[in-house]
This record gives sequence, structure tokens and C-alpha cells, in this order.
Amino acid sequence: MARLHHVPLSPFCRKVRLSLAEKKIEVDLVEERYWEADPDFLRRNPAGKVPVVRLDGKMMSESAAICEYLEETRPEPPLMPKDPEARYEVRRLVSWFDDKFHHDVTSKLLYERVNKKITGQGYPDSRNVKDGAKAIKYHLDYMAWLLDQRRWLAGDVMTLADFAAAAHLSCLDYISDVDWNRSAVVKDWYAKIKSRPAFRSILADQVSGFRPPPHYADLDF
Amino acid sequence: MARLHHVPLSPFCRKVRLSLAEKKIEVDLVEERYWEADPDFLRRNPAGKVPVVRLDGKMMSESAAICEYLEETRPEPPLMPKDPEARYEVRRLVSWFDDKFHHDVTSKLLYERVNKKITGQGYPDSRNVKDGAKAIKYHLDYMAWLLDQRRWLAGDVMTLADFAAAAHLSCLDYISDVDWNRSAVVKDWYAKIKSRPAFRSILADQVSGFRPPPHYADLDF
Ligand SMILES: N[C@@H](CCC(=O)N[C@@H](CS)C(=O)NCC(=O)O)C(=O)O
Ligand SMILES: N[C@@H](CCC(=O)N[C@@H](CS)C(=O)NCC(=O)O)C(=O)O
Repeated sequence: MARLHHVPLSPFCRKVRLSLAEKKIEVDLVEERYWEADPDFLRRNPAGKVPVVRLDGKMMSESAAICEYLEETRPEPPLMPKDPEARYEVRRLVSWFDDKFHHDVTSKLLYERVNKKITGQGYPDSRNVKDGAKAIKYHLDYMAWLLDQRRWLAGDVMTLADFAAAAHLSCLDYISDVDWNRSAVVKDWYAKIKSRPAFRSILADQVSGFRPPPHYADLDF
Repeated sequence: MARLHHVPLSPFCRKVRLSLAEKKIEVDLVEERYWEADPDFLRRNPAGKVPVVRLDGKMMSESAAICEYLEETRPEPPLMPKDPEARYEVRRLVSWFDDKFHHDVTSKLLYERVNKKITGQGYPDSRNVKDGAKAIKYHLDYMAWLLDQRRWLAGDVMTLADFAAAAHLSCLDYISDVDWNRSAVVKDWYAKIKSRPAFRSILADQVSGFRPPPHYADLDF
């Protein structure tokens, strides 16, 4: 059985959880207080970051590398198309969410409101929260623009790009930071992905000190 | 012919330049003042970041996605091994440099000393510079530890992981921020990669207002 060292509200961990679940790989979840820099944890990943997964007898870190490895060793069901141009688009969007969306939105809303409190770094910086709340609108509009032309974010099939996006948005939804009324296509897309069996464990997450809004786990939100 | 929108001292752009050159794809370099957010540039990449490459009639952004695409469409010479575990290690290290090294070192030294000046954001923050100078030692030691066990960073053949690392280090070397005396194996590794034809254009870079030290372009440094 795979073992994942994670925190519940980490978009990188959630992307890996979704990929593992979609490929029906059973996983034992272990919460890791990475900010305490426990020596055992640092031995598993000298970068000191989650996710870290124990799989095929190896300790693996870096979510993009883990997801590509899963795709190469467990190709069914595929989370990446076959054609190089289509694969490029999946990877571009994964990086879009994990680099740009993460920087513009996740770090400004989730990390300010949740991570700072959990790791004892004080109160949210209201300037960052304001910037994040503004940036998420732009990002939802970009998603809406993509979804006006495509069934899923990277094309006509569900891919890792959808999981990367849903990983970020679900963390933000946990703290009520997503306005689902902004775009009907984005809401429909999220409803589709939320109803997959792979999403169940994410909808069941509970972080002490932070209670999710009732719509968080509701498939009919 | 490919066209690359770039800035000379960007590790992400240099990684793509090295991959293109190693695969003998001729490229027309266009300097892009991305911080001026020119509408034409934003049309090419709504993320507003370099590198952006025009290749096979498509405009492509995100260096990791571009390099994977190059590997899939121009497999010779390979910059990635065939075995999934070995490929995982290449990708883990690319992310190590582009995420962790970038955050700990490049953003604290290069962006403070160079990017701030070029983009008119004032003077380096001495706290960041101090942290970056401390962190690069830890990173060079990590590289030395890897290179004590392997000929190249990810294993016994040169890969994209070496290009990612060399892209960051060469930018820092341009501003004299790498202590090559810290580790003989790291210096030998850099000498090997520096002498490749693919590195020539990088060693010829000139950024106005910043003169590289004489050893920067010297193969026998
Ligand atoms: N590039 C890494 C990023 C992972 C990451 O930043 N994880 C956060 C939690 S969401 C973390 O562990 N941060 C601790 C740190 O940066 O020291 C990946 O894709 O796995
Ligand atoms: N994830 C991107 C990162 C590229 C990146 O951050 N480029 C910097 C220059 S070194 C940039 O364009 N920054 C502008 C910005 O962040 O707005 C990639 O791998 O291509």
C-alpha cells in the first residue's frame, strides 16, 4: 500500500491524492507537520515539503514528478492524452495552476488565512488577502474562457490539468473563497469533478479550527 | 526557425535555450521586457512570463511543459532516460531547482541584485541577499552529495536536471555569486557542462549595467 505524507489543505498533496485515487491506488494518509522540520521527515525529503509518497519501495517528493511517474507506471485510466501537443497543453496548465495561480491566489488567501495560523505565524496580511480575492476573479474568468471552448480544461478529456485546478479550488472552497456564481461553466466543471469517486476523501477532510461551509462537501452546491 | 521570447538572466529561459541547442534546433532570440506587460506579449502568454517560444506554429509557455514537448517531438539526443524511476529522478531534480533552489537562492540573490534594478524596483534587500548567500552553500553541498554518487545530477547520463541546475548557477555566476571552491565535484560538473556547444550562447550573454566577471565565460575557470 502507498503511504502519503501530506497536509489536508495543500493543493500539491490534493493533486497527488486525486491521481492516486483515480488510478485506484490505495493510500495510507499520514499528516505531516512539515513546519516542525522533524529530522525523520527531512530524511524522507530534504526539501522539507509535502507531498512525500512512499510507493514501489521508494520515497518520492515533488508532485509533478510523482504524477508523471504514476502516469508512466499505471497508465490506466489515463490522465494525459497521447498526442505531444495535447500533453503540452496539460502540462502548461498544471504549471499555470501550480505556479501562477498558486502565487496569485492560493498563497494570498489560503496561506494567509490558514497556514499562518496553523504554523503560528500570526494574522493574515489584509493587503495579500485583498490581492488574492481580486486575482481569483481573473483566474476564474480564464478558466471560463477555456471551458467555453473545451469540455475539460486542457481539451475534451479529463486530465491532470483538471486535478491541479480542482486541487487549488477545493482548498479555497474549504475557506469559502470561491464565488461559484461568477461563471456557470466553471461551476458545472467543478460539479463534474467533485462527483468523481476520487474526490470523496477530499470532501471528507476536516481541519481543526477551520470548519468548511456546508456547500463544501455538497455535490449539488 | 523557432523564436524564443526571453531575458538573458532567467534560469527558466536558459533551461529552454540549453534544451533547444542540445537538440540542434535553431532559435531566434528576442528580448522581452515582460515587466512592461506589453499587450502583444500578454496575448502570447496570458501569464505574462518568459520563456515563451514559437515552435511548430504554436506559441508555448511554461518551461517544464516546453522541455517535455521537445523531448517527445525531438527525442535525439535524449535529455531524459527511458526508465520511469530514472525519469522520476530527473523531474524531481528539475523541480528541486525550479522551485526550491529558485525560492531559496535565485530569487534572493539574482532577483534582488539584478531584476530589481532592471525593472526599477529599487535596491536589494540586504536580509534577502544574506539569506540567499547562506542557502546557496547548502544547495552546493546537496549537489556535491549527489555528484559523489553519480556522474551527472540525476544519474550516469546528462539530463534536463543538469540543465535546470546549470541554468540557475550560470545566472548566479554572472553576478559572481557562486563559490566554485566550495566543492571540487561541483566545479568539475560545471566545467563539463560549460564546455558543451549548447552552452556557448549563454556564455556570450551581456546584460547592460552588469558586467560578468572574467571567469564567467572561461572554460578553464
Ligand atoms: N514543488 C512542490 C511544492 C510543494 C509545496 O510547496 N508544499 C507546501 C505545502 S502546500 C510545503 O510543504 N511547504 C513547505 C515549505 O515550502 O517549506 C510540489 O509540487 O510538490
Ligand atoms: N513556471 C514558469 C516560470 C517562469 C518565470 O517565472 N519567469 C520569470 C523570469 S525569470 C518571469 O517572467 N517573471 C514575471 C512574472 O512572474 O510576472 C516557467 O517555468 O516557465
